[in-house]
Amino acid sequence: MSRALTLRASLLMLSLSYPCSRSAAQEPTQARVVRLAELEIDQTQIENYKAALREEIATSIRLEPGILTLYAVALKENPTQVRIFETYADVAAYRAHLETSHFKRYKAATQGMVKSLKLLETDPIMLGAKGQ
Amino acid sequence: MSRALTLRASLLMLSLSYPCSRSAAQEPTQARVVRLAELEIDQTQIENYKAALREEIATSIRLEPGILTLYAVALKENPTQVRIFETYADVAAYRAHLETSHFKRYKAATQGMVKSLKLLETDPIMLGAKGQ
Repeated sequence: MSRALTLRASLLMLSLSYPCSRSAAQEPTQARVVRLAELEIDQTQIENYKAALREEIATSIRLEPGILTLYAVALKENPTQVRIFETYADVAAYRAHLETSHFKRYKAATQGMVKSLKLLETDPIMLGAKGQ
Repeated sequence: MSRALTLRASLLMLSLSYPCSRSAAQEPTQARVVRLAELEIDQTQIENYKAALREEIATSIRLEPGILTLYAVALKENPTQVRIFETYADVAAYRAHLETSHFKRYKAATQGMVKSLKLLETDPIMLGAKGQ
């Protein structure tokens, strides 16, 4: 791995761990909101649900500066079980997200598809990530 | 949000969704390995465990080009419950990770701290992320 790549990886990790434009030593990520959503989707609606979710994620990442990750996956052992790893810059960013037209459209469109939804609030231990 | 920021966000999302240097239309992320690890940690060892995990994540991100995310969080409702959102470029990157000295050191150091470990294999629906 080149030194440039190593540096780039380290910087991205720092930028994910420390969202503000201050040094890592100055400010930890106390404001960050990191959440794991656990959903069960109606088996007959799973493809429709995925399409609605993809649209919602793409729009949120494109339009909302305070949304840092929306990583959505389905469990291989039970594809109706969906997990979303959500990272918001702060509580204000999360609250603003709930008021957007694209989020409301997603909620309305998927209302009949979601059999259960559990939101697990978390405390980050370390958020390590690398650019490609 | 500035156009530059919007473009940067879109490009990072593409880079996470499409790891190869081809266009999104050419190749989906069939090779990507995305996994959710669910761990329960001995309550008396949780701080030691977090320290070992942080070191392992920092080293993996720095040294291994095929490790894309290691996002580790503890559940607020039960802080001994840890979740790690792991993304590898492909199966080879994951196998190589298991053979590294830092991963082996982490496994040995935390052996007595981990009460249970469940690895959930997943199929990505959409991996949306944004640079800061």
